[in-house]
Amino acid sequence: MTDTPNVLWIMADQLRFDYLSCYGHPHLNTPHIDALAARGVRFTNTYVQSPVCGPSRMSAYTGRYVRSHGSTWNGIPLRVGEPTLGDHLRDVGARAVLVGKTHMIADLDGMAWLGIDPKSEIGVRVSECGFEAFERDDGLHPDSVAQKWSAYDDYLVSLGYVSDNPWEDFANSGVDPDGKLMSAWLLKNSRLPANVPEEHSETAYLTNRAMAFMEEAISDDKPWLCHLSYIKPHWPYIVPAPYHDMYGPEHIVDPIRSLAEKETDHPLLRAYQQARVCRTFSQDHVREHVIPAYMGLIKQLDDNLGRLFAWMDAKGLTENTIIAFTSDHGDYMGDHWMGDKDFYHDSAVKVPLVIADPRPVANVTRGTTSDALIEMIDLAPTFMGVMGCAPKPHIVEGRDLMSILHGKDGFSRRFVISEHDYSSFEMARALNVSQENARTVMIFDGRWKYIRCEGFRPILFDLESDPHEFIDLGASDIAVHVQVRKDMEQALLSWATQHHSRITATPEILACQDNATEVGILIGFWDEDDYETVAGKPFSSLLPVGAPASRKNSS
Amino acid sequence: MTDTPNVLWIMADQLRFDYLSCYGHPHLNTPHIDALAARGVRFTNTYVQSPVCGPSRMSAYTGRYVRSHGSTWNGIPLRVGEPTLGDHLRDVGARAVLVGKTHMIADLDGMAWLGIDPKSEIGVRVSECGFEAFERDDGLHPDSVAQKWSAYDDYLVSLGYVSDNPWEDFANSGVDPDGKLMSAWLLKNSRLPANVPEEHSETAYLTNRAMAFMEEAISDDKPWLCHLSYIKPHWPYIVPAPYHDMYGPEHIVDPIRSLAEKETDHPLLRAYQQARVCRTFSQDHVREHVIPAYMGLIKQLDDNLGRLFAWMDAKGLTENTIIAFTSDHGDYMGDHWMGDKDFYHDSAVKVPLVIADPRPVANVTRGTTSDALIEMIDLAPTFMGVMGCAPKPHIVEGRDLMSILHGKDGFSRRFVISEHDYSSFEMARALNVSQENARTVMIFDGRWKYIRCEGFRPILFDLESDPHEFIDLGASDIAVHVQVRKDMEQALLSWATQHHSRITATPEILACQDNATEVGILIGFWDEDDYETVAGKPFSSLLPVGAPASRKNSS
Repeated sequence: MTDTPNVLWIMADQLRFDYLSCYGHPHLNTPHIDALAARGVRFTNTYVQSPVCGPSRMSAYTGRYVRSHGSTWNGIPLRVGEPTLGDHLRDVGARAVLVGKTHMIADLDGMAWLGIDPKSEIGVRVSECGFEAFERDDGLHPDSVAQKWSAYDDYLVSLGYVSDNPWEDFANSGVDPDGKLMSAWLLKNSRLPANVPEEHSETAYLTNRAMAFMEEAISDDKPWLCHLSYIKPHWPYIVPAPYHDMYGPEHIVDPIRSLAEKETDHPLLRAYQQARVCRTFSQDHVREHVIPAYMGLIKQLDDNLGRLFAWMDAKGLTENTIIAFTSDHGDYMGDHWMGDKDFYHDSAVKVPLVIADPRPVANVTRGTTSDALIEMIDLAPTFMGVMGCAPKPHIVEGRDLMSILHGKDGFSRRFVISEHDYSSFEMARALNVSQENARTVMIFDGRWKYIRCEGFRPILFDLESDPHEFIDLGASDIAVHVQVRKDMEQALLSWATQHHSRITATPEILACQDNATEVGILIGFWDEDDYETVAGKPFSSLLPVGAPASRKNSS
Repeated sequence: MTDTPNVLWIMADQLRFDYLSCYGHPHLNTPHIDALAARGVRFTNTYVQSPVCGPSRMSAYTGRYVRSHGSTWNGIPLRVGEPTLGDHLRDVGARAVLVGKTHMIADLDGMAWLGIDPKSEIGVRVSECGFEAFERDDGLHPDSVAQKWSAYDDYLVSLGYVSDNPWEDFANSGVDPDGKLMSAWLLKNSRLPANVPEEHSETAYLTNRAMAFMEEAISDDKPWLCHLSYIKPHWPYIVPAPYHDMYGPEHIVDPIRSLAEKETDHPLLRAYQQARVCRTFSQDHVREHVIPAYMGLIKQLDDNLGRLFAWMDAKGLTENTIIAFTSDHGDYMGDHWMGDKDFYHDSAVKVPLVIADPRPVANVTRGTTSDALIEMIDLAPTFMGVMGCAPKPHIVEGRDLMSILHGKDGFSRRFVISEHDYSSFEMARALNVSQENARTVMIFDGRWKYIRCEGFRPILFDLESDPHEFIDLGASDIAVHVQVRKDMEQALLSWATQHHSRITATPEILACQDNATEVGILIGFWDEDDYETVAGKPFSSLLPVGAPASRKNSS
């Protein structure tokens, strides 16, 4: 083992920021995550760079905005050559290991252009966001041509769960009171117990796999980052007993929505509300079925984390492992008359983030909260710093959070950014918006949340006077709102025109460009004096020192 | 030979749009380029995507904005994985061959991450913007540690030009009346004849090398694009006899400048004017020495093109070769009290462009001009179209010009964009601007030229009332100017927030994303009826068709 701490980076999938007891949920008790918060820092203003799995994760794994890495929606491959956290950690001799979900699709065209075999070591890594894949599980294995048989399927079969699609029939099915299998793809079945015991569910399985990796790594000399990436509480919403009926209607918090929101004149917001998934989740009976299962999945996750943390304690790993817990985005659950995610209300774009650093230098902040504006892309540079990797501001756009964790000054951010590409959505078709223009971007400064919608007027919320984001000020003619919109647009323009793709230009390369004169490239010098005044050395020192030039024509 | 035409893409370096007789120069007669224009289309409004070699060329070779490819200034490597014209042409079985300059620096870090050997076939291609390098010559070989011995140096040595730095001592030195060698790095020596006969100069050498490639390719079955990329009339300004004294003060056109320009209150413009190279070229004696040499270099280039075109006629190549002639940017030559390039007046950012398509379908446009707004990134998709490569709008941001060449409707563009990164310049230090913020971007709609300068007020020219760009309206409070600035800023924001990096998302991938339901990923369906109404097929068709699920616990 080295002196460098290891990093366990736990990510839940689709976990809202407010469905944990340490984040204030009145009925969902999550003691193990709360305990992590008690020995670390709990961040209260963490925003993902896109409110949907794929792009949010690609931002997390590259430390870069969606604008920069270009994987703007699910299923859009992360381009070959986009540097990842794994690349940076390997550069300093550390491992970056995946256990679970990345939502990554391989860029096969890009690999072909560069002659990279997708089955080679580098090809596999390029297909997994730069991670070494100890276990990959993207969690969805529908029964179709697109189905991918997973290691978890093998695991189920090895335990005697026999089926052509073990994931579907066991993990993703519920059992009704008559013993009949009911698919978890249908929301009405959410409250049934899953057809698999808890200890064989995907959440337990991935927890076991993380332990297997850490066990194996004990004999290894390299520091590691393990990305333990759960597939839950993401839909399909189904959970094994006893979690399936641990929560009932009395534990469901009210939806964050107002009748006035339904009267919006904003075409894009209207199109969202009219989209099928939003109409579904706006119905109370859907919430009443889904939310108890969603809460059960979170409770199960917390219990598994408790099991994991106890095991780490027993193995002596806790004292040398920084643990981060977060999520890739939230879940509307009917808030604002919307379902799933894909827009910028806090229900979807804000996530929990807890980081516990066991080192004495972090003692001053244990059990505290930080209200700083955090972006998910801050984790990559934080972990790079832990592993001794120098900052790479030309590539990594997030900011190292260590100063916050160690109670020091130095972290500042004026605003957070999130982006969304809705070109594949029914809203784009309903509004007849092209693939090119089906894009929105949010900029939030801690008070004002401004959402630019290409082709439509902007949306503006004042979270100070309207913390629930009910009142859209995007068309308000009150002077302060007009001015805020102008300021936010300027900030967005400045951000959008930054050098997001200038990834090969280290600060040193940029600083060196100026030495053209020193290497003998002289631009705009009239004569020797002119040169010598600037360069401080005689012009003749530049001339060849060999034989005087002459043509010895041998031909 | 195939039916697909070949493409000869000739690029001059630092050639202003107005220093050719077909573009109206009163004293510089360029009959061979004029003849090309007479059998093709001459474009009168062609803008480069950055007014400096490296980024302008990377845009030309990728068909993408500087924002997109990220090589924002000279010496900043084009990242591995940035798709090039060469990649696209190879995909359809055509060759993309380099003869001359690219200004490319290899991305060694990127190659290391992907396990690509820089010496391998793919490594060499990746180091040359995707071209197969028949001849590489970036044209500057100063006598220093950075000196690169070139194939042209070998050529000189083989002819008996013996020196430790043949390029410097022969091609880049003048001979004074006493027979003494004088360095062309100093502008005062610009009017001396180069110490090499014309037929052994770099311009003649590259012309010969293009012929050698075409000769070799005759026996090849693949269609080709040959990028013949001259290193002149770029500085150092020196030309062999008889071109060195073909032009005198009587042939120099007046500088485009006004005394009022010197009184600008714009901090960045003032810093440019105070930069050394601009002060140098603002002096009349500098112009009087340099411009005759610059004109001589252009005349020599035209004569070499005459020689090349005659050779192609004799070889029967003309009838099957589309020829394009252009430049990577202009040269201020003292206009606007500025020197070299690196800003957005037409002297620097506007270039000549002539394209001659020998096919009968282009007969209707021979000898015509087009005033359409053209970007240099339009050439790549034009050549892709010629070679039968389908459009790739997710990667290539330029537009196919063939409709213009064939006299058809279909080409339109609202504005052209150019960008500049001045982080390495003395202006950045004089104004204390960070590497991050030393950036400008121009948007021009054919009348209004708006220049956004991060951290400073914008600059605005009205080329209709002020074709010489003397009057900066960036702070004008006249209503129309205020409105134009607002409109241009909106257009810029829309452009900047486009998906410049979404290069792995083909239109088909984006369209397919919507079929999640078809592959069995069901989001937000309450029950079977709900699914069947949307999907038009029974829900049960999604379920596994194998044995009913049951645990046969063998353990």
